Amino acid sequence: MENYFLNKKIGIIGGGQLGQMMLLEAKKMGFYAVVLDPSEQCPCHSICDEHIVASFDDEQAFQLLAEKTDVITYEFEHINAKALEKLEAQGYKVYPTPASLEIIQDKLTQKETLLKAGLPVPEFMPVKSKEDMAKAGEIYGYPYMLKARTGGYDGKGNAVVKSYDHIDEAYRELGNGTIKLMAEKMIKFKMETSILACRSLNGDIAVYPVGDNIHIDSILHKTKVPANIPDEASKSAMKAASKVMEIFDGIGMFCVEMFVTNDNKILVNEIAPRPHNSGHYTIEGCITSQFENHIRAVVGLPLGDTSLISPTVMINILGEEGYSGKALVSGLDKALALKGTTVHIYGKTETKPKRKMGHITVTSNSVLKAEAIADEAFNYIKIRS
Amino acid sequence: MENYFLNKKIGIIGGGQLGQMMLLEAKKMGFYAVVLDPSEQCPCHSICDEHIVASFDDEQAFQLLAEKTDVITYEFEHINAKALEKLEAQGYKVYPTPASLEIIQDKLTQKETLLKAGLPVPEFMPVKSKEDMAKAGEIYGYPYMLKARTGGYDGKGNAVVKSYDHIDEAYRELGNGTIKLMAEKMIKFKMETSILACRSLNGDIAVYPVGDNIHIDSILHKTKVPANIPDEASKSAMKAASKVMEIFDGIGMFCVEMFVTNDNKILVNEIAPRPHNSGHYTIEGCITSQFENHIRAVVGLPLGDTSLISPTVMINILGEEGYSGKALVSGLDKALALKGTTVHIYGKTETKPKRKMGHITVTSNSVLKAEAIADEAFNYIKIRS
Repeated sequence: MENYFLNKKIGIIGGGQLGQMMLLEAKKMGFYAVVLDPSEQCPCHSICDEHIVASFDDEQAFQLLAEKTDVITYEFEHINAKALEKLEAQGYKVYPTPASLEIIQDKLTQKETLLKAGLPVPEFMPVKSKEDMAKAGEIYGYPYMLKARTGGYDGKGNAVVKSYDHIDEAYRELGNGTIKLMAEKMIKFKMETSILACRSLNGDIAVYPVGDNIHIDSILHKTKVPANIPDEASKSAMKAASKVMEIFDGIGMFCVEMFVTNDNKILVNEIAPRPHNSGHYTIEGCITSQFENHIRAVVGLPLGDTSLISPTVMINILGEEGYSGKALVSGLDKALALKGTTVHIYGKTETKPKRKMGHITVTSNSVLKAEAIADEAFNYIKIRS
Repeated sequence: MENYFLNKKIGIIGGGQLGQMMLLEAKKMGFYAVVLDPSEQCPCHSICDEHIVASFDDEQAFQLLAEKTDVITYEFEHINAKALEKLEAQGYKVYPTPASLEIIQDKLTQKETLLKAGLPVPEFMPVKSKEDMAKAGEIYGYPYMLKARTGGYDGKGNAVVKSYDHIDEAYRELGNGTIKLMAEKMIKFKMETSILACRSLNGDIAVYPVGDNIHIDSILHKTKVPANIPDEASKSAMKAASKVMEIFDGIGMFCVEMFVTNDNKILVNEIAPRPHNSGHYTIEGCITSQFENHIRAVVGLPLGDTSLISPTVMINILGEEGYSGKALVSGLDKALALKGTTVHIYGKTETKPKRKMGHITVTSNSVLKAEAIADEAFNYIKIRS
C-alpha cells in the first residue's frame, strides 16, 4: 500500500502558540495546514496555508474546516465536543477523538474514569450546593479545592475553600450556582509534575521524561527535566501516563498533570488532550518534540523517539505587569549570548500582564547549570508595550 | 540601550527550501518575514508574512522588499549584487554584504582573494580562449577542471577537460566563448568536506563540526558528521573556514567547501555565502542550527552554540527518475518508524528528476549506526508523480 502523505491536509482548531508550534512541525514535514481561529492576527496566521477566521462555536466554520482537510486536531480542549462528534459522524477524522475529549472536558467524568481504571487520584466529589460544600469540608477538612467542572485553565476556575466560613465567598467566586462544580481534597505534594505522552493510530504509546513543574500564581513558570525524584516515582508516573492514553483511547499528545507526595507516591491531577506548555522543553530537549509527535500521530505516522538529549530547563515569558498594547520584546541580545539558550517568541502583536508571549529553553550538562542560565536569560527578557 | 527585536522585519530573496528553513527559525523567534520569489507556490509561500512575487532581476521589487523590511538576506548567491549595492547605498541593511557577495559570485576573484590571504587553494588560472585551455593542460596536465566563473551550482557550469583533443568540446559545452571561464588543477582528494561557519555583526565567529560529503552526479547525496579524518585536519579545516569569514567580512552563514587530500591537507574549493545543503544536519545534529544562526547574525543577535549533539547523517531526497508533475511522497510511514529519524519535505508541489524535494536526518550514537538507519529510510521514501 502506498501512502501519499504530502497530500494530507491538516486542520487545526486554535491558532495560538500551541497551534503555531504544531504548524512549524507540520510545515517541516511538508503538510498543508488550515487553521480556524477568530483572531486575524493570531500566531498561526502567517504560517498556515489557509486561515478560517471564525469563532470556536461556529459549526459552519467547523464543517468548512473538515471539508478542506483530511484530519482535524485542536490546540485547546474547550471546544464544542458535540460539534466535533457531528463531523466524525459524517466520516471526517478528528483526533484526539470527540468521545475522549468529552469525558476529559468535564473534570468530574474525567476523574471518575481515572478512578474506575484504578489510577490514583485525589479524593473528589460532585458539588451541587453550599450544603455539598459543607459536606466536602467535613470529609476532606479545610482547606480543600473547589473546581469548575469545565472550562478552567491556568488556575482559572479553581478556588481554595479555606474554612467553613469561606464557603459563601468561594461559591460566589465560582459562578454562584450557575456552573457545575466539584470538590477535591487538598493534596500536600512535594512536586507538581506533568507527563507528556503520545499515542499513535495503531496504539503505540511514547512517554516523555518526567519534568518538575514550578507554578507562580497558578501559571506554569518553569519546567526542569529530569525531575529530581526517585526512579521508582518516575517510572510509576510514566506508567500511569501510559495507562491514561489507553483508557481514554487517546490519539495524539496528552499531558497528564500529577502530584508527587512526600512519600514519592503519585496522584493524577488533571489531563489535557493536547500538547502542553510543560512539554515545550521537548523541542530542544528531546529527539522528537511533543509537537512533531502530535502531528505524526494525527496523520497516522509512527511516533518518534522521546528520549531526553540532555538536561533541559524551560521558563515561560509572560507579558510584564503594567504594560498592555503593542508588544515590544527586549533583551534577546543578552539572553541569546548565554550558552545553550533558545528563545521562542510567539509573535503575538498585543501584550498584557501575564499573557504567555514566549519561552526560554536551555540545555546543558546538568539541570542546575541549565536552570542558572535560564534564570539569567529570563531576567534579561522583557515584554513591554 | 533597549533593542526591540520583535519589531524587526526580515526580507529574504529566494523562497526555496533554504529560505523556508530560515523562515521556520525566524518565525520561532517571532520575526515578521517578507519573501521575494517569482514562484507563487514556492516553499516559503505559505509561511511568510508577505510574498512579493517578482523575478530576481526586478530592481523595483528589490526596492519594495527593502522598504518593507529592516534587513535583507538571501538564500542563493546568483542574484544581482549591483542591485543590492544600490539598496545598501540608500542605507538599507543587506547581509551578507553585497561587496562580499560580488567577490564570491565570480569564482576567479573568489579564488584570488583566498590565495592572497594565504589560504590553500587548487592551482587556477583565468581562461579567455582555447589557447588558454591548451596552456592550462600543459601546466596542470589532463584531466583538469574548466569552470564557468559565475552562475554554477550542483556541478552545473563545470566541465572536466579530459585531454588536449577534448578542448573544443569542453569549450563548446561551457558557452563557446560567451561566458567567462577559469581552469583549475584536478585535485586527487580522499574526501570532500564543507565547513559551515557563521559570523555575527560584532565579528564573533562560530564554526560547525566537519562533515564528510558524498556526491552523486555532482549533487550532494549524504553528509556524515563527524567526518572520519584526523583531528589535525579537522582543526585546520575549521581554522581555514574561520579565516574565510574574516577575509570576506562575512555576515551570516557561509559554507566553505574543501578537499581533504590523501596526506590530510585541506584545499579550499568553493564558498557559498549562505546556509548550505551540507549543513542541513545541524537542525537535529547541533545545539543551534545553521538557519537559526543565520537569522541571529543578520538581525544582529549573538550566535548560538554550534556543538554537535550526537553523530548525525543527512541524506537528500531527490525527485525520482522518470517522474515529473504533481509530487507524491510515499514511504514516510516506514522511514519514520526507524529510531532517531526525522524527515523534512519541502512542500514543492511539482517534482522532476533529481529535484531536491526533502532530506532525511538521523542522529544516533555512532556515524555507522546513523548511516545504516539513514540508508534504510532513504530506500523507503519515494517522490513520484
